[in-house]
Amino acid sequence: MRKVPEKMPDKLSLKPDADLFPLPVVLVGCGNMSGGINIITISWIGVVCSSPPMISISVRPQRHSHRLLMETDGWTVNIPTEDHLYETDFCGTHSGKNIDKFSALNLTPVPSRRISAPMIKECPVSMECIKRNTLSLGSHDMFLGEVVALYASPDVITDNEIDAGKVRPITYNIWDYWNMGKRIGSFGKCSNRKE
Amino acid sequence: MRKVPEKMPDKLSLKPDADLFPLPVVLVGCGNMSGGINIITISWIGVVCSSPPMISISVRPQRHSHRLLMETDGWTVNIPTEDHLYETDFCGTHSGKNIDKFSALNLTPVPSRRISAPMIKECPVSMECIKRNTLSLGSHDMFLGEVVALYASPDVITDNEIDAGKVRPITYNIWDYWNMGKRIGSFGKCSNRKE
Repeated sequence: MRKVPEKMPDKLSLKPDADLFPLPVVLVGCGNMSGGINIITISWIGVVCSSPPMISISVRPQRHSHRLLMETDGWTVNIPTEDHLYETDFCGTHSGKNIDKFSALNLTPVPSRRISAPMIKECPVSMECIKRNTLSLGSHDMFLGEVVALYASPDVITDNEIDAGKVRPITYNIWDYWNMGKRIGSFGKCSNRKE
Repeated sequence: MRKVPEKMPDKLSLKPDADLFPLPVVLVGCGNMSGGINIITISWIGVVCSSPPMISISVRPQRHSHRLLMETDGWTVNIPTEDHLYETDFCGTHSGKNIDKFSALNLTPVPSRRISAPMIKECPVSMECIKRNTLSLGSHDMFLGEVVALYASPDVITDNEIDAGKVRPITYNIWDYWNMGKRIGSFGKCSNRKE
């Protein structure tokens, strides 16, 4: 029998905010290999569809990358490892208007096959996204992209699948970066430890 | 000076997929407290705007929760802890069409203030989201919601902020659940360990 609905006397009511966590932390490559290119760190990102595979990213119109995203056909999603925490934080806190982040951080742009934006060689996982839609929501514009290519370093593959444990990605939790801990279960295969 | 653009001879080209990770794992409360309610586990979720605070969730039209989301004014985002891994996996792999998940899992529905959908008492962080937009993308429909209320248990608060370390949330990485490791840096404050 269902428990009787309760009020929330045990909870604090905080200022409404999108306090979702843990979030991914990725380096988005944007622009045009034959013109200006840039890297922007994004945690306002999510999977929005499985078929076709689609990812959303949200960017403030004031950001240098916003113009590059508006003017080109897509962007790349590159997953950095813990070892690139400094570069990741740098690309989220510095504008590409004044700095060539690839040069400044000694990162290597790699041409995409389907879009004009560069991938980042030093990231073990990269995806090419073709821009499909743009929505203005307020402080941020949301860009919806279809994943049309996926690359991974052989170092991070186990049994023909990307192995997150080998990638050692960064997560973002309300202003703090955390690494991952350990695998605690698999989809559809978690037993009830209380039984 | 920027490195010369390279090809990706060192990477494997995999079947295009939205292999983004680590992703959040949340329990979405939906439906109407005075009618049918349900819980669905969602990792296809992301922050899409800061002001107003907005979150997107994507759900297949075939899911029982999809109808509840279509027929009501919003949903709740509830962040489970590691201790609720079994319940979290259960709500992602069973349909609410045949089971009352609240009863089956001994979870407590709590009325929201602004919307009809229930929060989940056992989750330390809950948000009420008002539905603002819906987009059909393919296998999934994307629902955009504005966060209009945020609640947290006093146990997970440090210095008036939600402390992710105290929540001990679950992350989702290509079919596997992981816990978080340790804090490795803060936004805008990561030094270059290579220097």
